[in-house]
Amino acid sequence: MTSAFDVEALAERIAAGEPRALARGISCLENEVDGVEALLDGLHHRLGGARRIGITGPPGAGKSTLTAELARGVLEDGLTVGIIAVDPTSPFTGGALLGDRIRMSELVTEPGVFIRSMASRGSLGGLATATREAADLMDAAGYDRVIIETLGVGQSELDIAASADTTAVVLVPESGDGIQAMKAGLMEVADLFVVNKTDRPGADRLEKEISVMMAIREGNLLHDIVSHHGTRVDHPTRAETGMRETPVLQTIASTGVGVVELAVALDGHFAWLQETGELAARRAHRRIKRTEDVLARLARRSVDTVWRERREVVAGMLATNDISPYAAARELYEEWVYRQKGATGPALE
Amino acid sequence: MTSAFDVEALAERIAAGEPRALARGISCLENEVDGVEALLDGLHHRLGGARRIGITGPPGAGKSTLTAELARGVLEDGLTVGIIAVDPTSPFTGGALLGDRIRMSELVTEPGVFIRSMASRGSLGGLATATREAADLMDAAGYDRVIIETLGVGQSELDIAASADTTAVVLVPESGDGIQAMKAGLMEVADLFVVNKTDRPGADRLEKEISVMMAIREGNLLHDIVSHHGTRVDHPTRAETGMRETPVLQTIASTGVGVVELAVALDGHFAWLQETGELAARRAHRRIKRTEDVLARLARRSVDTVWRERREVVAGMLATNDISPYAAARELYEEWVYRQKGATGPALE
Repeated sequence: MTSAFDVEALAERIAAGEPRALARGISCLENEVDGVEALLDGLHHRLGGARRIGITGPPGAGKSTLTAELARGVLEDGLTVGIIAVDPTSPFTGGALLGDRIRMSELVTEPGVFIRSMASRGSLGGLATATREAADLMDAAGYDRVIIETLGVGQSELDIAASADTTAVVLVPESGDGIQAMKAGLMEVADLFVVNKTDRPGADRLEKEISVMMAIREGNLLHDIVSHHGTRVDHPTRAETGMRETPVLQTIASTGVGVVELAVALDGHFAWLQETGELAARRAHRRIKRTEDVLARLARRSVDTVWRERREVVAGMLATNDISPYAAARELYEEWVYRQKGATGPALE
Repeated sequence: MTSAFDVEALAERIAAGEPRALARGISCLENEVDGVEALLDGLHHRLGGARRIGITGPPGAGKSTLTAELARGVLEDGLTVGIIAVDPTSPFTGGALLGDRIRMSELVTEPGVFIRSMASRGSLGGLATATREAADLMDAAGYDRVIIETLGVGQSELDIAASADTTAVVLVPESGDGIQAMKAGLMEVADLFVVNKTDRPGADRLEKEISVMMAIREGNLLHDIVSHHGTRVDHPTRAETGMRETPVLQTIASTGVGVVELAVALDGHFAWLQETGELAARRAHRRIKRTEDVLARLARRSVDTVWRERREVVAGMLATNDISPYAAARELYEEWVYRQKGATGPALE
């Protein structure tokens, strides 16, 4: 397959840390330009240096402000940080209140920071893959931290957040949706919880809600482990199960309160990941998942060539209801398979 | 392709309105059992009788209660209703407060009601397709209304809601995320807005927020139309643009206040869809989109056969980082292409 750009040259420039090359590479990913697989393959050996942090939560939880504060802390430690904002309500993507936007635009001009918003156009499945790949490019470009900020309601958005090494779930008092949000799947992705805007009423109640939910969840997990071990009745200790208590932190992101403690907790989680071998396991799992996603994308792009050619004719038949979508899809699929037979790609084995 | 069940027999039983056959058919969709395309193709001529209503909004907006009340109204009119709950916080799926659950379980025992929850496992893209197909089966089974209740934060969830003929966006005062939710894409899918729990403070403010947002949006649309027409400076009237004012209704779903008015507004929107030809256009567009989705699914399932066979070997290579996910996916893809060459499917033209 020919590439739409000079893959090796772009890979070299990204590896050299050129921000413009990185931006170009991410645009190529978003648009699924021919050659992106080769680009990512070529940079694969450079991956693993960046720690990936997911920041997720419901709209209005203060994720962007917290992301900006965390990024500032990374810079103060003399490290570099890439930020990916997937949240459509994020100031990075132009959707938030003026105060947030000012704070963000200050960050934009800092050296050592690379900010990129990922727009949700077309399928979110495609966006999820592109987001993970953008994080890879930032990793390959040498950024020490990659922060992925995403809206935490919606399965695909949660999947994006959960692709980080450490995922922080941000909730706020007053919103009344602490439990609702957790039911929506936030609990499953949380390596730690942040109760933001703790100067507002209800912070203690929210923290209690989280603790209760976590206790219930942990109880279930312990029960599963006990059942698995057979006859033993008493609960195993944390050390025995390898489980880690999920910390609950309090912050007021707008004034920076608790942000240092959050950074320390993130460090602590990463240290735990390394010590237990969980980091290697998670990353290996991610590589398997990525392979599956890329394979599906290759297949989809291949059938898309047939779809684009036949779309108008098929649309005409569908408009008059001459054929069902299923019969039409089947015909297009078989045409595609037929074309594969004539293809001259290399045979494996 | 052989089917895992007797397609014609199941199609007949679904067409005859047998609830158990309908339930079985939806399970087949969810599990992507071989033969579902043939089932849906066989029932395609029966589609179009059901009016599809999407109910969406943030967690805690009262979507389930409103859905139950609307369903009850449909029954009182002597009609039948199918309900699909995609919302993970929905009582249909076991996630809500006791009060809601009691109200729902009463509905379950009513004749003329078919309730189905769609669980989000694996990819949400798959869930979105399965949800639309489940609505098709309910349509084919003769239900007069199909109500699709889904969480309205998250792009894929919004796509599901927007696949209805009429989509109602439910918001609540106090939550403080009226504007946030709208930024997250809710405004784009709304055929009408419902301000639920209007007995709480802030209802008027929320209604004003919605009106302002709608006015801004309409202004932009009108501006586009004016620009398109060239030199004209004064704004075209609504009648000229064919635009429809988006109604904003007030309800207290828990006590039934405003539910009749909501049902009337839904009827009004459907009448408008019919009169303007918009219904036919939307449904034709849905058939095109469906064809594209089914084609992509056929391709994905085809490569999945290679993936399942090779997964363990590839995982081993990825674990030791001997190969990048991109190189692995490319090899698997080419193996799949090679197998297609040997396949003996019918050639089209």
